[in-house]
Amino acid sequence: MINVADYAEAAAAKVDPQIWCYFEGGAGDEVTLRANVASYGRWRLRPRMLVDVSEVSTRTTLLGTEVATPLGVAPFAMQRLLDPEGEAATARAAAAAGVLMTVSTLTTARHEEIAEASSGPRWFQLYVLRDRARTLEHIAIARETGYSAVVLTVDLPYVGRRERDLRLGFENPPRDLDLPYAALFDTTPTLTWRDLEWIRSESELPLVVKGVLTREDAELAVEHGADAVWVSNHGGRQLDGVAASLDALPEVVDAVAGRCEVYLDGGIRRGIDVVKALALGARAAFAGRPFAFGLAVDGGAGVASVLELLRAEIELALGLLGCTSPAAVARSHVEPTVPYDPGT
Amino acid sequence: MINVADYAEAAAAKVDPQIWCYFEGGAGDEVTLRANVASYGRWRLRPRMLVDVSEVSTRTTLLGTEVATPLGVAPFAMQRLLDPEGEAATARAAAAAGVLMTVSTLTTARHEEIAEASSGPRWFQLYVLRDRARTLEHIAIARETGYSAVVLTVDLPYVGRRERDLRLGFENPPRDLDLPYAALFDTTPTLTWRDLEWIRSESELPLVVKGVLTREDAELAVEHGADAVWVSNHGGRQLDGVAASLDALPEVVDAVAGRCEVYLDGGIRRGIDVVKALALGARAAFAGRPFAFGLAVDGGAGVASVLELLRAEIELALGLLGCTSPAAVARSHVEPTVPYDPGT
Amino acid sequence: MINVADYAEAAAAKVDPQIWCYFEGGAGDEVTLRANVASYGRWRLRPRMLVDVSEVSTRTTLLGTEVATPLGVAPFAMQRLLDPEGEAATARAAAAAGVLMTVSTLTTARHEEIAEASSGPRWFQLYVLRDRARTLEHIAIARETGYSAVVLTVDLPYVGRRERDLRLGFENPPRDLDLPYAALFDTTPTLTWRDLEWIRSESELPLVVKGVLTREDAELAVEHGADAVWVSNHGGRQLDGVAASLDALPEVVDAVAGRCEVYLDGGIRRGIDVVKALALGARAAFAGRPFAFGLAVDGGAGVASVLELLRAEIELALGLLGCTSPAAVARSHVEPTVPYDPGT
Amino acid sequence: MINVADYAEAAAAKVDPQIWCYFEGGAGDEVTLRANVASYGRWRLRPRMLVDVSEVSTRTTLLGTEVATPLGVAPFAMQRLLDPEGEAATARAAAAAGVLMTVSTLTTARHEEIAEASSGPRWFQLYVLRDRARTLEHIAIARETGYSAVVLTVDLPYVGRRERDLRLGFENPPRDLDLPYAALFDTTPTLTWRDLEWIRSESELPLVVKGVLTREDAELAVEHGADAVWVSNHGGRQLDGVAASLDALPEVVDAVAGRCEVYLDGGIRRGIDVVKALALGARAAFAGRPFAFGLAVDGGAGVASVLELLRAEIELALGLLGCTSPAAVARSHVEPTVPYDPGT
Repeated sequence: MINVADYAEAAAAKVDPQIWCYFEGGAGDEVTLRANVASYGRWRLRPRMLVDVSEVSTRTTLLGTEVATPLGVAPFAMQRLLDPEGEAATARAAAAAGVLMTVSTLTTARHEEIAEASSGPRWFQLYVLRDRARTLEHIAIARETGYSAVVLTVDLPYVGRRERDLRLGFENPPRDLDLPYAALFDTTPTLTWRDLEWIRSESELPLVVKGVLTREDAELAVEHGADAVWVSNHGGRQLDGVAASLDALPEVVDAVAGRCEVYLDGGIRRGIDVVKALALGARAAFAGRPFAFGLAVDGGAGVASVLELLRAEIELALGLLGCTSPAAVARSHVEPTVPYDPGT
Repeated sequence: MINVADYAEAAAAKVDPQIWCYFEGGAGDEVTLRANVASYGRWRLRPRMLVDVSEVSTRTTLLGTEVATPLGVAPFAMQRLLDPEGEAATARAAAAAGVLMTVSTLTTARHEEIAEASSGPRWFQLYVLRDRARTLEHIAIARETGYSAVVLTVDLPYVGRRERDLRLGFENPPRDLDLPYAALFDTTPTLTWRDLEWIRSESELPLVVKGVLTREDAELAVEHGADAVWVSNHGGRQLDGVAASLDALPEVVDAVAGRCEVYLDGGIRRGIDVVKALALGARAAFAGRPFAFGLAVDGGAGVASVLELLRAEIELALGLLGCTSPAAVARSHVEPTVPYDPGT
Repeated sequence: MINVADYAEAAAAKVDPQIWCYFEGGAGDEVTLRANVASYGRWRLRPRMLVDVSEVSTRTTLLGTEVATPLGVAPFAMQRLLDPEGEAATARAAAAAGVLMTVSTLTTARHEEIAEASSGPRWFQLYVLRDRARTLEHIAIARETGYSAVVLTVDLPYVGRRERDLRLGFENPPRDLDLPYAALFDTTPTLTWRDLEWIRSESELPLVVKGVLTREDAELAVEHGADAVWVSNHGGRQLDGVAASLDALPEVVDAVAGRCEVYLDGGIRRGIDVVKALALGARAAFAGRPFAFGLAVDGGAGVASVLELLRAEIELALGLLGCTSPAAVARSHVEPTVPYDPGT
Repeated sequence: MINVADYAEAAAAKVDPQIWCYFEGGAGDEVTLRANVASYGRWRLRPRMLVDVSEVSTRTTLLGTEVATPLGVAPFAMQRLLDPEGEAATARAAAAAGVLMTVSTLTTARHEEIAEASSGPRWFQLYVLRDRARTLEHIAIARETGYSAVVLTVDLPYVGRRERDLRLGFENPPRDLDLPYAALFDTTPTLTWRDLEWIRSESELPLVVKGVLTREDAELAVEHGADAVWVSNHGGRQLDGVAASLDALPEVVDAVAGRCEVYLDGGIRRGIDVVKALALGARAAFAGRPFAFGLAVDGGAGVASVLELLRAEIELALGLLGCTSPAAVARSHVEPTVPYDPGT
């Protein structure tokens, strides 16, 4: 198992296709799903030589929390479909690696189980509920069970049409799967930015807005109190045909203009993908599928392997790029993958 | 049957290849035929979040007529080659769905049959005839049999060379097929914009000019009295090598500058294709082949299924885009599918 | 046999591969050979509607000579390798069709045979010889045997490296093939534009300079007395990696600025290819391989079929483009095949 | 054996895959490895006609040394894995051809063996060592054994992750392979441009800085005393995702602005590749793999064949381009491979 692609192949061979479709697939024709991966190829790295890189560290902070790498675990649901321990296994591996984990509302493990498995940094992913009191109540519970931020998913007023699931008959969520917080998956399409402002004012946890793809919404998120903006197209699972996350990142970074942290998820398969995201202005990247591959292949140990594999790739990329830390990665370390023509 | 591609595959498997070639094929090397479909991939969607989309409607009006969706049935000929009821079946399905149907001059059902099957909005597609009196006479008949507009096809001074038909021996039109208005398929290459002006002045029905691909002709169409301009390359069946309809749409919209409605057909296979056309300035899109697929697979019920499938896709796309209606879709909801480079 | 591709396939199946390699192949990696064909796809047609196209003619003049189409027969060598009658068969078919034929120095038929077979317009392709007297002598003979212009090939100071020939053991020229004017294939790499000026001043025939790919050389050709400039990369058989002819055409047309006629050869397979060349400023296009396909498949009758097939394609393209003649085709009838973005 | 691709195929078929992976492979997903080759296709040649090219010479000078071609042998390691004589065989072939050879620190032949085999121009490739005295000592030895310049590799503070090697179990370096100067492969990630300045001031040999990919580092190299800048991504074996060498060349040439010579390696497979590099401002190109192919296939004779094959290709390309020498190749002999649009 040399790289993430090896884990992808092994996971696809191991997991029941009627389950795997849910983790692998995207919406519609999966144009955005493929674009997420392909987008990294449109930027190339500009390495600097003869920099003293004898000490390279991948450590950084996210909303003030120290983490071992600028790559976190994105919220992906129903992990017990891949491993008996599910989210608890992932959390244990992430904590051991010092990596930030984001837990999905559709977790199959209870907060207590996860907290027991993990002493590491954790954020909780939430949908906005019709019932405001219940939303606040859940944020309070999250805080009590060790989460240090709330990640509000804003790109799911309706569930995207994932045709692989329909074709293979995947029931979403599966009837006999225990989803302790499924009741919170009661998203409402009536929400607006004013509701965000209300949550921000009532919540004691920092608020990350996940699912932004435009400069306009990035601006609104900052104006309405977001502590961070997370560029995401929900892994290509919501509206097919939207931009790859990396393609949307620069305009979001421009709009945010340093007023809060910016993250992205979508298509990360290599350490150099993370480095490119940093160069284009992200504070960190998140990945879901690579860790789902690891979890499916070898449970928590598989997650740990993928985490270390990607951490090592990031570290080597930093060193070869002439950067001693994530903060050293600048816009000038990437350029579009097109020939430079100085004119005739 | 999850999407239009499923219907396409099923239809191709079911219909006699010597018939199917006529519905599937285009002119020459079919460059434009393929470009029609591919062109939608060159634009990506910019979805806006936290808009109240609890009430999404796909309803709109076309030349003042209320329709259920901004996607109509384009005129395609000889539908009895696909189903015994032919155009009557399509008309019934369209009416039930509240969808505008355009009936081809080369219909295999008589106006009366269609009128009996359909109480819904209908337009009649016409070629300009050498015999002016007969042109007016037919417009009058159309009006009496319930059509609310005339769609004048202007891109067929000569019939394009459709090589699949030649290769498979499709006789166009088939000798023993009853085409009640075949005599009206007597197009003349002598016509000019002045003839359009004459028709417009003599006709009591609104006049849609179908087959425009340039800003120059869009300008002329408006100047000579068109009530709407329909961007089309005749489904890639006339001059191979011309622009995909979507590629020609923006310059036509610019030239028309709001003076009349603009439609397009060509390559629509998904609800997001329709939404992209709206964002680039079309009032509505039309599709032919998707409904031919449905008709071939399951007659009127097949057409109804495809209509509902695409309507639902449009509705979901609107909701996930942050739009509550077709009118809410703006130019800012799309952008070219290329990376954004904010400079170094 | 519906299009040129059909003839290409049939010819490749019929002719001995050790012969066919010579006609099909190009130099090096055949990048330019493929680019010649692909380049037409980078331009799309802009058809104009409601123009009176009841009378469409493909007729035009080349250096004052009336021809039936703006597509001539390019000089290709050793035609008896494909058909016993060789160049005489091609010439007869071209004359019958009113098409200009250019005869190669490496013809396998003598001028007398060709003159006997053809009363149509013919040009003779020549290399510049070290022996000036002999060059003039041959131009005089050409004039006497009915040629109305000399086409001077300038892109062969050395013969390109055609690897298909090397791989299959094609001997160039074959030992036992009668090439009556092979002695004239004594090109010299010492020639300069001053020699062109000398030829022009001494010759009584108009002089076409074939093999120009840059604005600089186009300017020099005009300055040194060329009566026409022929854009060509020798069918991709000389220096691999140079521009497709169509890609080089616009800069040549710009440089010539109307001071003489401009032609091109390379990659023509369809009538619309010819029309695109006209739109970009060529007076006519020439093709070699399509006629070699026809000749190989069915001798003179095959050439005649390909000639008529392409003439009919040009005629239909003109009509559907809204043009009544080659002269009516303007720069505005084409545009690059990229989406038009009117801005946000 | 007609071209380099033939040698590549034969070598891959002959050499043990567990060895061949080391010579063929690159880092990560091998994006840069492929880009190196593909980048030449993004530039096309602009050949000039009717230039007197009766005398074409490929000769040039590199840092004042006369060489037969503007293509040298890049340093590639462990050549005895491919041939019993290893670097000595390559050196003999290069010397016989008058071609500059660069010998890797990881040579399997001792300097004395190489010097015995070769009277031709040679440069020695070196890494910067922690032990400064030893660095100088080795430069002195290099000078004494006939090397006329030192090529300092600066892109290897850490060794890239070459996944083919990991997958096939290639041990780098192989345990039982004699690498007489392996101790010099003790690179240090602490080095900076100041160290370069020190070496330059202490060394009596000209200093070439190899591994520059940006204008910034090119500027620094010149400022700190480099006698030449060598654009390279280490054959795609260090940081995957960086620019192809040819893509980086123009900005380096711009930055250097004639203050020293500029070379490149990476992706050279054809004579026209070399010519394109010259046109974009390189004084010479270097190649490694093509000579590894030759060495693997037929030892020193194979290297000699590849050298002559590429020299002949360069010579023919110069002649057909209208250039009598490498110095005659100018920026105007290439342009980006995109259509030219003179506007409407």
